[in-house]
Amino acid sequence: MAANKKISSAVIRRLPRYYRYLSDLLNMDITRISSKELSKRMGITASQIRQDLNCFGGFGQQGYGYNVEFLYKEIGNILGVNDRFTTIIIGVGNMGHALAHYGNFRKRGFDTIGLFDVNPDIIGQEINGIKVMHTDELESFVQKNHVDIAILTVPYEQTPEVAEKVARLGIKGLWNFSPMDLRLPYDVVIENVHLSDSLMVLGYRTKEKFGKSRK
Amino acid sequence: MAANKKISSAVIRRLPRYYRYLSDLLNMDITRISSKELSKRMGITASQIRQDLNCFGGFGQQGYGYNVEFLYKEIGNILGVNDRFTTIIIGVGNMGHALAHYGNFRKRGFDTIGLFDVNPDIIGQEINGIKVMHTDELESFVQKNHVDIAILTVPYEQTPEVAEKVARLGIKGLWNFSPMDLRLPYDVVIENVHLSDSLMVLGYRTKEKFGKSRK
Repeated sequence: MAANKKISSAVIRRLPRYYRYLSDLLNMDITRISSKELSKRMGITASQIRQDLNCFGGFGQQGYGYNVEFLYKEIGNILGVNDRFTTIIIGVGNMGHALAHYGNFRKRGFDTIGLFDVNPDIIGQEINGIKVMHTDELESFVQKNHVDIAILTVPYEQTPEVAEKVARLGIKGLWNFSPMDLRLPYDVVIENVHLSDSLMVLGYRTKEKFGKSRK
Repeated sequence: MAANKKISSAVIRRLPRYYRYLSDLLNMDITRISSKELSKRMGITASQIRQDLNCFGGFGQQGYGYNVEFLYKEIGNILGVNDRFTTIIIGVGNMGHALAHYGNFRKRGFDTIGLFDVNPDIIGQEINGIKVMHTDELESFVQKNHVDIAILTVPYEQTPEVAEKVARLGIKGLWNFSPMDLRLPYDVVIENVHLSDSLMVLGYRTKEKFGKSRK
Protein backbone atom coordinates (compact mmCIF):
# COMPACT_ATOMS: atom_id res chain seq x y z
CA MET A 1 0.00 0.00 0.00
CA ALA A 2 1.57 3.22 -1.19
CA ALA A 3 -0.55 5.34 1.09
CA ASN A 4 0.00 7.47 4.17
CA LYS A 5 2.29 10.03 2.62
CA LYS A 6 1.46 13.55 1.64
CA ILE A 7 -2.28 13.19 1.38
CA SER A 8 -3.72 16.68 1.65
CA SER A 9 -5.98 17.38 4.56
CA ALA A 10 -8.86 18.25 2.20
CA VAL A 11 -8.65 14.74 0.74
CA ILE A 12 -8.42 13.19 4.20
CA ARG A 13 -11.60 15.01 5.19
CA ARG A 14 -13.40 13.45 2.23
CA LEU A 15 -12.22 9.88 2.91
CA PRO A 16 -14.81 9.02 5.58
CA ARG A 17 -17.43 10.11 3.10
CA TYR A 18 -16.10 7.77 0.40
CA TYR A 19 -15.98 5.08 3.04
CA ARG A 20 -19.65 5.58 3.87
CA TYR A 21 -20.78 5.51 0.25
CA LEU A 22 -18.70 2.43 -0.51
CA SER A 23 -20.16 0.72 2.54
CA ASP A 24 -23.66 1.49 1.24
CA LEU A 25 -22.75 0.11 -2.19
CA LEU A 26 -21.45 -3.10 -0.63
CA ASN A 27 -24.68 -3.44 1.31
CA MET A 28 -26.54 -3.18 -2.00
CA ASP A 29 -24.26 -5.88 -3.49
CA ILE A 30 -22.79 -3.44 -5.99
CA THR A 31 -19.29 -4.75 -6.70
CA ARG A 32 -17.96 -2.18 -9.11
CA ILE A 33 -18.68 1.42 -9.96
CA SER A 34 -17.42 4.04 -12.39
CA SER A 35 -16.19 7.41 -11.20
CA LYS A 36 -19.11 8.88 -13.16
CA GLU A 37 -21.70 6.85 -11.30
CA LEU A 38 -20.02 7.46 -7.95
CA SER A 39 -19.95 11.15 -8.84
CA LYS A 40 -23.71 11.16 -9.43
CA ARG A 41 -24.37 9.51 -6.08
CA MET A 42 -22.00 11.61 -4.04
CA GLY A 43 -22.47 14.99 -5.67
CA ILE A 44 -18.71 15.33 -6.25
CA THR A 45 -17.36 15.75 -9.79
CA ALA A 46 -15.97 12.59 -11.42
CA SER A 47 -12.63 14.30 -11.97
CA GLN A 48 -12.43 15.19 -8.28
CA ILE A 49 -13.10 11.56 -7.41
CA ARG A 50 -10.42 10.30 -9.79
CA GLN A 51 -7.99 12.86 -8.43
CA ASP A 52 -8.76 11.99 -4.80
CA LEU A 53 -8.50 8.26 -5.29
CA ASN A 54 -5.35 8.57 -7.36
CA CYS A 55 -3.64 9.94 -4.26
CA PHE A 56 -3.34 6.40 -2.95
CA GLY A 57 -2.16 4.87 -6.17
CA GLY A 58 -4.99 4.78 -8.72
CA PHE A 59 -7.33 1.99 -7.77
CA GLY A 60 -9.54 2.47 -10.83
CA GLN A 61 -9.18 0.70 -14.14
CA GLN A 62 -10.06 2.23 -17.48
CA GLY A 63 -13.37 0.83 -18.74
CA TYR A 64 -13.95 -1.15 -15.56
CA GLY A 65 -14.22 1.49 -12.91
CA TYR A 66 -13.55 0.84 -9.25
CA ASN A 67 -13.72 -2.44 -7.42
CA VAL A 68 -15.99 -1.42 -4.55
CA GLU A 69 -14.80 -3.94 -1.97
CA PHE A 70 -11.12 -3.33 -2.71
CA LEU A 71 -11.55 0.43 -2.51
CA TYR A 72 -13.61 0.13 0.67
CA LYS A 73 -10.89 -1.94 2.31
CA GLU A 74 -8.06 0.30 1.14
CA ILE A 75 -9.73 3.44 2.42
CA GLY A 76 -10.52 1.62 5.66
CA ASN A 77 -6.82 0.75 5.97
CA ILE A 78 -5.76 4.31 5.32
CA LEU A 79 -8.19 5.59 7.93
CA GLY A 80 -7.03 2.96 10.39
CA VAL A 81 -10.38 1.19 10.80
CA ASN A 82 -8.56 -2.13 11.26
CA ASP A 83 -5.91 -0.72 13.58
CA ARG A 84 -8.64 -0.04 16.11
CA PHE A 85 -8.42 3.07 18.24
CA THR A 86 -9.11 3.07 21.96
CA THR A 87 -11.21 5.92 23.30
CA ILE A 88 -12.36 7.14 26.66
CA ILE A 89 -15.26 9.50 27.28
CA ILE A 90 -14.84 12.17 29.91
CA GLY A 91 -18.14 13.67 30.99
CA VAL A 92 -21.02 11.21 30.94
CA GLY A 93 -23.83 13.74 30.89
CA ASN A 94 -26.43 13.62 28.15
CA MET A 95 -24.02 13.97 25.23
CA GLY A 96 -21.37 11.67 26.70
CA HIS A 97 -24.09 9.13 27.39
CA ALA A 98 -25.32 9.33 23.81
CA LEU A 99 -21.81 8.89 22.43
CA ALA A 100 -21.16 5.92 24.75
CA HIS A 101 -24.20 4.25 23.21
CA TYR A 102 -23.37 5.15 19.62
CA GLY A 103 -22.65 1.81 17.92
CA ASN A 104 -21.41 3.34 14.71
CA PHE A 105 -18.05 4.31 16.24
CA ARG A 106 -17.17 0.66 16.85
CA LYS A 107 -17.93 -0.15 13.21
CA ARG A 108 -15.57 2.64 12.23
CA GLY A 109 -12.68 1.34 14.31
CA PHE A 110 -13.15 3.01 17.69
CA ASP A 111 -13.52 1.08 20.94
CA THR A 112 -14.62 2.89 24.06
CA ILE A 113 -12.70 1.40 26.99
CA GLY A 114 -13.33 3.91 29.75
CA LEU A 115 -15.98 6.36 30.99
CA PHE A 116 -15.30 9.11 33.51
CA ASP A 117 -17.35 11.67 35.39
CA VAL A 118 -17.30 13.58 38.68
CA ASN A 119 -21.01 13.26 39.45
CA PRO A 120 -21.61 10.66 42.20
CA ASP A 121 -25.03 9.87 40.69
CA ILE A 122 -23.35 8.80 37.45
CA ILE A 123 -20.21 7.10 38.81
CA GLY A 124 -20.75 3.36 39.03
CA GLN A 125 -23.42 3.30 36.32
CA GLU A 126 -22.75 0.79 33.59
CA ILE A 127 -23.06 1.61 29.89
CA ASN A 128 -22.44 -1.14 27.36
CA GLY A 129 -20.62 -3.14 30.01
CA ILE A 130 -18.34 -0.28 31.07
CA LYS A 131 -18.60 1.22 34.54
CA VAL A 132 -18.34 4.98 34.89
CA MET A 133 -15.31 5.85 37.04
CA HIS A 134 -14.44 9.00 38.94
CA THR A 135 -12.25 11.36 36.94
CA ASP A 136 -9.69 11.08 39.74
CA GLU A 137 -8.98 7.55 38.47
CA LEU A 138 -8.09 8.82 35.02
CA GLU A 139 -4.35 8.93 35.62
CA SER A 140 -4.00 5.38 36.88
CA PHE A 141 -6.33 4.14 34.13
CA VAL A 142 -4.21 5.75 31.43
CA GLN A 143 -1.05 4.27 32.95
CA LYS A 144 -2.54 0.77 32.75
CA ASN A 145 -4.35 1.09 29.42
CA HIS A 146 -3.27 2.53 26.09
CA VAL A 147 -5.70 5.31 25.19
CA ASP A 148 -5.57 6.82 21.71
CA ILE A 149 -8.38 9.32 21.96
CA ALA A 150 -10.18 11.21 24.71
CA ILE A 151 -13.71 12.34 23.95
CA LEU A 152 -14.44 15.49 25.93
CA THR A 153 -18.08 16.06 26.78
CA VAL A 154 -17.61 18.08 29.94
CA PRO A 155 -19.20 21.49 30.61
CA TYR A 156 -17.78 24.44 28.68
CA GLU A 157 -15.92 26.04 31.59
CA GLN A 158 -14.18 22.80 32.56
CA THR A 159 -13.08 21.84 29.07
CA PRO A 160 -9.66 23.58 28.91
CA GLU A 161 -8.60 22.20 32.30
CA VAL A 162 -9.71 18.64 31.57
CA ALA A 163 -8.15 18.81 28.11
CA GLU A 164 -4.84 19.91 29.55
CA LYS A 165 -4.90 17.09 32.09
CA VAL A 166 -5.60 14.57 29.33
CA ALA A 167 -2.76 15.95 27.21
CA ARG A 168 -0.35 15.84 30.15
CA LEU A 169 -1.22 12.17 30.63
CA GLY A 170 0.01 11.53 27.09
CA ILE A 171 -3.25 11.01 25.20
CA LYS A 172 -2.60 12.23 21.68
CA GLY A 173 -6.05 12.68 20.16
CA LEU A 174 -8.78 14.91 21.62
CA TRP A 175 -12.33 15.07 20.35
CA ASN A 176 -13.92 18.16 21.84
CA PHE A 177 -17.68 18.76 22.01
CA SER A 178 -17.58 22.08 23.85
CA PRO A 179 -18.47 25.04 21.64
CA MET A 180 -14.90 26.37 21.60
CA ASP A 181 -11.90 25.95 19.34
CA LEU A 182 -9.80 24.15 21.88
CA ARG A 183 -6.06 24.74 21.60
CA LEU A 184 -3.36 23.43 23.90
CA PRO A 185 0.36 24.06 24.42
CA TYR A 186 0.95 20.33 23.92
CA ASP A 187 1.74 18.17 20.96
CA VAL A 188 -1.73 16.72 20.44
CA VAL A 189 -4.28 16.47 17.65
CA ILE A 190 -7.62 18.11 18.34
CA GLU A 191 -10.89 17.88 16.45
CA ASN A 192 -13.59 20.26 17.58
CA VAL A 193 -17.21 19.32 16.94
CA HIS A 194 -19.39 22.38 16.58
CA LEU A 195 -23.00 21.26 16.64
CA SER A 196 -24.41 24.74 17.20
CA ASP A 197 -22.43 26.07 14.24
CA SER A 198 -24.00 23.49 11.97
CA LEU A 199 -27.48 24.30 13.27
CA MET A 200 -26.91 28.04 12.81
CA VAL A 201 -25.84 27.52 9.22
CA LEU A 202 -29.00 25.48 8.64
CA GLY A 203 -31.08 28.24 10.20
CA TYR A 204 -29.44 30.86 8.00
CA ARG A 205 -29.84 28.84 4.81
CA THR A 206 -33.49 28.07 5.59
CA LYS A 207 -34.24 31.71 6.32
CA GLU A 208 -32.37 32.89 3.24
CA LYS A 209 -34.24 30.51 0.97
CA PHE A 210 -37.73 30.56 2.42
CA GLY A 211 -37.87 33.67 4.61
CA LYS A 212 -39.22 33.71 8.11
CA SER A 213 -42.95 33.53 8.71
CA ARG A 214 -42.70 33.73 12.49
CA LYS A 215 -41.45 36.54 14.70
CA MET B 1 -28.49 46.46 7.63
CA ALA B 2 -27.04 45.82 4.22
CA ALA B 3 -26.76 42.11 4.81
CA ASN B 4 -28.46 38.99 3.51
CA LYS B 5 -27.48 39.26 -0.10
CA LYS B 6 -24.89 37.26 -1.98
CA ILE B 7 -22.85 36.12 0.98
CA SER B 8 -20.85 33.11 -0.16
CA SER B 9 -21.52 29.85 1.56
CA ALA B 10 -17.89 29.65 2.74
CA VAL B 11 -18.34 32.94 4.58
CA ILE B 12 -21.68 31.80 6.01
CA ARG B 13 -19.99 28.69 7.39
CA ARG B 14 -17.48 30.88 9.22
CA LEU B 15 -20.09 33.22 10.74
CA PRO B 16 -21.04 30.99 13.71
CA ARG B 17 -17.35 30.82 14.53
CA TYR B 18 -17.01 34.61 14.55
CA TYR B 19 -20.14 34.69 16.65
CA ARG B 20 -18.61 32.31 19.21
CA TYR B 21 -15.36 34.24 19.48
CA LEU B 22 -17.14 37.57 19.79
CA SER B 23 -19.35 36.11 22.49
CA ASP B 24 -16.22 35.03 24.39
CA LEU B 25 -14.71 38.50 24.00
CA LEU B 26 -17.88 40.09 25.36
CA ASN B 27 -17.75 37.74 28.34
CA MET B 28 -14.21 38.94 28.97
CA ASP B 29 -15.41 42.57 28.75
CA ILE B 30 -13.32 43.22 25.67
CA THR B 31 -15.16 45.94 23.80
CA ARG B 32 -13.02 46.39 20.72
CA ILE B 33 -10.56 44.33 18.78
CA SER B 34 -8.33 44.72 15.75
CA SER B 35 -8.48 42.26 12.86
CA LYS B 36 -4.88 41.39 13.75
CA GLU B 37 -5.73 40.45 17.32
CA LEU B 38 -8.86 38.57 16.24
CA SER B 39 -6.73 36.80 13.67
CA LYS B 40 -4.29 35.63 16.36
CA ARG B 41 -7.11 34.26 18.48
CA MET B 42 -9.03 32.56 15.70
CA GLY B 43 -6.17 31.24 13.60
CA ILE B 44 -7.59 32.93 10.48
CA THR B 45 -5.51 35.51 8.60
CA ALA B 46 -6.33 39.15 9.31
CA SER B 47 -6.97 39.78 5.63
CA GLN B 48 -9.47 36.90 5.55
CA ILE B 49 -11.24 38.42 8.54
CA ARG B 50 -11.40 41.86 6.94
CA GLN B 51 -12.65 40.33 3.70
CA ASP B 52 -15.30 38.23 5.48
CA LEU B 53 -16.59 41.06 7.61
CA ASN B 54 -16.58 43.50 4.71
CA CYS B 55 -19.25 41.31 3.09
CA PHE B 56 -21.81 42.89 5.38
CA GLY B 57 -20.68 46.43 4.93
CA GLY B 58 -17.33 46.99 6.64
CA PHE B 59 -17.90 47.18 10.35
CA GLY B 60 -14.27 47.94 11.14
CA GLN B 61 -12.71 51.35 11.45
CA GLN B 62 -9.13 52.16 10.56
CA GLY B 63 -7.06 52.53 13.71
CA TYR B 64 -9.92 51.52 15.97
CA GLY B 65 -10.69 47.98 14.93
CA TYR B 66 -14.02 46.34 15.46
CA ASN B 67 -16.63 47.21 18.03
CA VAL B 68 -17.15 43.77 19.55
CA GLU B 69 -20.72 44.21 20.73
CA PHE B 70 -21.87 45.79 17.49
CA LEU B 71 -20.26 43.07 15.41
CA TYR B 72 -21.66 40.36 17.67
CA LYS B 73 -25.17 41.76 17.28
CA GLU B 74 -24.87 42.24 13.52
CA ILE B 75 -23.66 38.70 12.95
CA GLY B 76 -26.39 37.45 15.28
CA ASN B 77 -28.93 39.35 13.16
CA ILE B 78 -27.56 37.91 9.96
CA LEU B 79 -27.69 34.40 11.38
CA GLY B 80 -31.21 35.00 12.66
CA VAL B 81 -30.48 34.50 16.35
CA ASN B 82 -33.11 37.09 17.21
CA ASP B 83 -35.67 35.79 14.73
CA ARG B 84 -35.81 32.59 16.77
CA PHE B 85 -36.26 29.30 14.95
CA THR B 86 -38.67 26.62 16.11
CA THR B 87 -37.39 23.07 16.07
CA ILE B 88 -38.79 19.63 16.72
CA ILE B 89 -36.76 16.53 17.47
CA ILE B 90 -37.84 13.27 15.89
CA GLY B 91 -36.31 10.25 17.57
CA VAL B 92 -35.77 10.71 21.29
CA GLY B 93 -33.19 7.94 21.75
CA ASN B 94 -29.82 8.72 23.29
CA MET B 95 -28.80 11.36 20.77
CA GLY B 96 -32.24 12.98 20.52
CA HIS B 97 -32.36 13.07 24.30
CA ALA B 98 -28.94 14.73 24.47
CA LEU B 99 -29.95 17.36 21.90
CA ALA B 100 -33.22 18.05 23.73
CA HIS B 101 -31.16 18.87 26.81
CA TYR B 102 -28.56 20.95 25.00
CA GLY B 103 -29.04 24.48 26.31
CA ASN B 104 -26.67 26.08 23.84
CA PHE B 105 -29.19 25.84 20.98
CA ARG B 106 -31.59 28.15 22.78
CA LYS B 107 -28.81 30.70 23.24
CA ARG B 108 -28.18 30.50 19.52
CA GLY B 109 -31.79 31.19 18.55
CA PHE B 110 -33.38 27.75 18.43
CA ASP B 111 -36.40 26.76 20.51
CA THR B 112 -37.41 23.13 20.69
CA ILE B 113 -41.20 23.01 20.72
CA GLY B 114 -41.90 19.33 20.06
CA LEU B 115 -40.43 15.87 20.67
CA PHE B 116 -41.52 12.74 18.82
CA ASP B 117 -40.80 9.05 19.03
CA VAL B 118 -42.52 5.72 18.33
CA ASN B 119 -41.26 3.92 21.43
CA PRO B 120 -44.08 3.58 24.02
CA ASP B 121 -41.48 3.66 26.83
CA ILE B 122 -40.38 7.11 25.72
CA ILE B 123 -43.73 8.63 24.70
CA GLY B 124 -45.16 10.67 27.56
CA GLN B 125 -41.74 11.39 29.11
CA GLU B 126 -41.09 15.04 29.76
CA ILE B 127 -37.83 16.75 28.83
CA ASN B 128 -37.38 20.43 29.69
CA GLY B 129 -41.14 20.73 30.07
CA ILE B 130 -41.97 19.15 26.71
CA LYS B 131 -43.82 15.84 26.56
CA VAL B 132 -42.66 13.30 23.98
CA MET B 133 -45.50 12.58 21.53
CA HIS B 134 -46.08 9.67 19.19
CA THR B 135 -44.77 10.34 15.68
CA ASP B 136 -48.34 9.77 14.44
CA GLU B 137 -49.20 13.14 15.97
CA LEU B 138 -46.57 14.91 13.90
CA GLU B 139 -48.96 16.00 11.14
CA SER B 140 -51.53 17.62 13.39
CA PHE B 141 -48.75 19.24 15.44
CA VAL B 142 -47.20 20.81 12.36
CA GLN B 143 -50.60 22.09 11.24
CA LYS B 144 -51.09 23.85 14.56
CA ASN B 145 -47.51 25.05 15.12
CA HIS B 146 -45.04 26.70 12.83
CA VAL B 147 -41.95 24.49 12.69
CA ASP B 148 -38.81 25.82 11.02
CA ILE B 149 -36.48 22.89 11.54
CA ALA B 150 -36.82 19.15 12.13
CA ILE B 151 -33.92 17.47 13.91
CA LEU B 152 -33.74 13.85 12.76
CA THR B 153 -32.22 11.44 15.27
CA VAL B 154 -34.01 8.29 14.15
CA PRO B 155 -32.25 5.01 13.26
CA TYR B 156 -30.37 4.93 9.97
CA GLU B 157 -32.86 2.79 8.04
CA GLN B 158 -35.83 4.96 9.00
CA THR B 159 -34.19 8.28 8.21
CA PRO B 160 -35.17 8.66 4.51
CA GLU B 161 -38.82 7.80 5.17
CA VAL B 162 -39.13 10.10 8.18
CA ALA B 163 -37.32 12.88 6.33
CA GLU B 164 -39.68 12.60 3.39
CA LYS B 165 -42.70 12.75 5.69
CA VAL B 166 -41.31 15.87 7.34
CA ALA B 167 -40.65 17.52 3.98
CA ARG B 168 -44.16 16.69 2.77
CA LEU B 169 -45.56 18.39 5.87
CA GLY B 170 -43.82 21.58 4.75
CA ILE B 171 -40.91 21.79 7.18
CA LYS B 172 -38.13 23.55 5.29
CA GLY B 173 -35.01 22.82 7.32
CA LEU B 174 -33.74 19.33 8.17
CA TRP B 175 -30.85 18.58 10.50
CA ASN B 176 -29.87 14.97 9.96
CA PHE B 177 -27.78 12.93 12.40
CA SER B 178 -27.84 9.63 10.49
CA PRO B 179 -24.52 8.78 8.86
CA MET B 180 -25.80 9.42 5.35
CA ASP B 181 -25.88 12.38 3.01
CA LEU B 182 -29.61 12.76 3.04
CA ARG B 183 -31.13 14.07 -0.17
CA LEU B 184 -34.80 14.56 -0.96
CA PRO B 185 -36.89 15.33 -4.03
CA TYR B 186 -38.34 18.30 -2.17
CA ASP B 187 -37.46 21.94 -1.89
CA VAL B 188 -35.83 21.79 1.54
CA VAL B 189 -32.51 22.71 3.13
CA ILE B 190 -30.59 19.84 4.70
CA GLU B 191 -27.55 19.87 6.95
CA ASN B 192 -26.01 16.50 7.62
CA VAL B 193 -24.01 16.03 10.81
CA HIS B 194 -21.35 13.38 10.40
CA LEU B 195 -19.95 12.60 13.82
CA SER B 196 -18.20 9.42 12.72
CA ASP B 197 -16.49 11.28 9.89
CA SER B 198 -15.03 13.76 12.33
CA LEU B 199 -13.83 10.97 14.62
CA MET B 200 -12.26 9.08 11.70
CA VAL B 201 -10.36 12.18 10.62
CA LEU B 202 -9.10 12.57 14.18
CA GLY B 203 -8.03 8.91 14.22
CA TYR B 204 -6.19 9.32 10.94
CA ARG B 205 -4.43 12.52 11.99
CA THR B 206 -3.39 11.02 15.34
CA LYS B 207 -2.06 7.89 13.67
CA GLU B 208 -0.27 9.89 10.98
CA LYS B 209 1.42 12.11 13.53
CA PHE B 210 2.23 9.72 16.35
CA GLY B 211 1.96 6.26 14.83
CA LYS B 212 0.08 3.42 16.40
CA SER B 213 1.56 1.65 19.40
CA ARG B 214 -1.27 -0.81 19.76
CA LYS B 215 -2.46 -3.55 17.37
